[in-house]
Amino acid sequence: MKLFRKLRVHELLYNKKDKGLAAAIKLMVGRKPLNLSLYKLAARHSSVAEEIKHGVKASNERLEFLGDAVLGAVVAELLFIKFPYRDEGFLTETRSRIVNRESLNRVGQKIGLSKIVESDLSQKGLYTHKSIYGDTLEALVGAVYLDRGYIFCKHFILTKIIAPFFDLDNIITTTTNFKSKIIEWSQKESKEVEFVLQSVNGSQRFKEFTIELKIENEFFTDGKGPTKKKAEQEAAKNACEKLNLAV
Amino acid sequence: MKLFRKLRVHELLYNKKDKGLAAAIKLMVGRKPLNLSLYKLAARHSSVAEEIKHGVKASNERLEFLGDAVLGAVVAELLFIKFPYRDEGFLTETRSRIVNRESLNRVGQKIGLSKIVESDLSQKGLYTHKSIYGDTLEALVGAVYLDRGYIFCKHFILTKIIAPFFDLDNIITTTTNFKSKIIEWSQKESKEVEFVLQSVNGSQRFKEFTIELKIENEFFTDGKGPTKKKAEQEAAKNACEKLNLAV
Repeated sequence: MKLFRKLRVHELLYNKKDKGLAAAIKLMVGRKPLNLSLYKLAARHSSVAEEIKHGVKASNERLEFLGDAVLGAVVAELLFIKFPYRDEGFLTETRSRIVNRESLNRVGQKIGLSKIVESDLSQKGLYTHKSIYGDTLEALVGAVYLDRGYIFCKHFILTKIIAPFFDLDNIITTTTNFKSKIIEWSQKESKEVEFVLQSVNGSQRFKEFTIELKIENEFFTDGKGPTKKKAEQEAAKNACEKLNLAV
Repeated sequence: MKLFRKLRVHELLYNKKDKGLAAAIKLMVGRKPLNLSLYKLAARHSSVAEEIKHGVKASNERLEFLGDAVLGAVVAELLFIKFPYRDEGFLTETRSRIVNRESLNRVGQKIGLSKIVESDLSQKGLYTHKSIYGDTLEALVGAVYLDRGYIFCKHFILTKIIAPFFDLDNIITTTTNFKSKIIEWSQKESKEVEFVLQSVNGSQRFKEFTIELKIENEFFTDGKGPTKKKAEQEAAKNACEKLNLAV
């Protein structure tokens, strides 16, 4: 079997559609499929699935279950290694910001799943339309895992899904509520903290707010951002760093 | 580093307590630790964790987060392969019957985590007492994963956690509600289905109930079990098989 695969004997049996799918998978995953039927299954939305046994449909939903679990484990390790000083609450929260319907759906669309997914969306409601690429992306992860094993699948997830589409630092900034950290600190230390809007620059469409963070009525840090809230976060983040607060 | 590990140079630095932990891990996991500090961390409950940085405690909670994810992926694959004709709802439900606080706690106690876990339970509430071995088991899985990689960790989970302590067939029998399947079928087919208690045998302590399943007032199947409910399930299961219903 392994020799057959090395010699790509299985590719001789591909029809035109198979060849197209194999080429698309190669682009997305980085390697040609060994077992194309896994990817065919991953691309098959439940709306077009055939019944293979009484009550059992061959759709991508089972692969989605598997892919979701593998994705969860790989992202867990990534965050575990990247943030050695953050607690498990932060890790859980950050992972759910990466692995959720909305963001997976966005990534699924960007890597071109619309070209391979088979569906008949006339049957189903709006929800299914919205999550179809996210679901298929998870199913694809499941297929890659079964086709090429954990190590390759991890590499695929990290280099093709996470690195190009997720800005971890940005996710972390929005995960950590620096403003509440500073307010917590001020209460503990009995210091008065104030956020003061200093200026608003830019045009109507691209505004830049500058917020000054004052401690005991003295300038401490400032922050800029496209909204007041983001500028406050930035000022608070700078203050946390200056105060050496663990976040 | 690899050569050092092969030569077991790191073991020369073990103190008496380290040696004890390494021996206990070997018994539980099947191999000696390569990086003992991972297992030390896994054994350290948050009640005895030292603060390593302002607000950050070195406890097993981060490893628990990682281990939980890896365990979820391994069990997902196990069920995916073992039940090719079951849908993702069944897979999800069955996994949650294996990977839950209560069952992991039971397994954690049985594999002897009480011998290695470090805790100070005077500080915490009842919940912590109850889940400490389950949490530590997950942390141990996280440590094994980081220490020896996915393939070994998967083998550890399957052979040391799942196989000896979980009866998958039994879990599946209780996951599938055969009785409701039969009732659903009877409504669809407009047939009258009845469960009739036929006999109760055995002593006060070990009873055996026999339940007869009647369709349109005719005997169809029966089932035996230590409770009425289990006997009904068994009768319904036999009926599902006889009717060739997908479950």
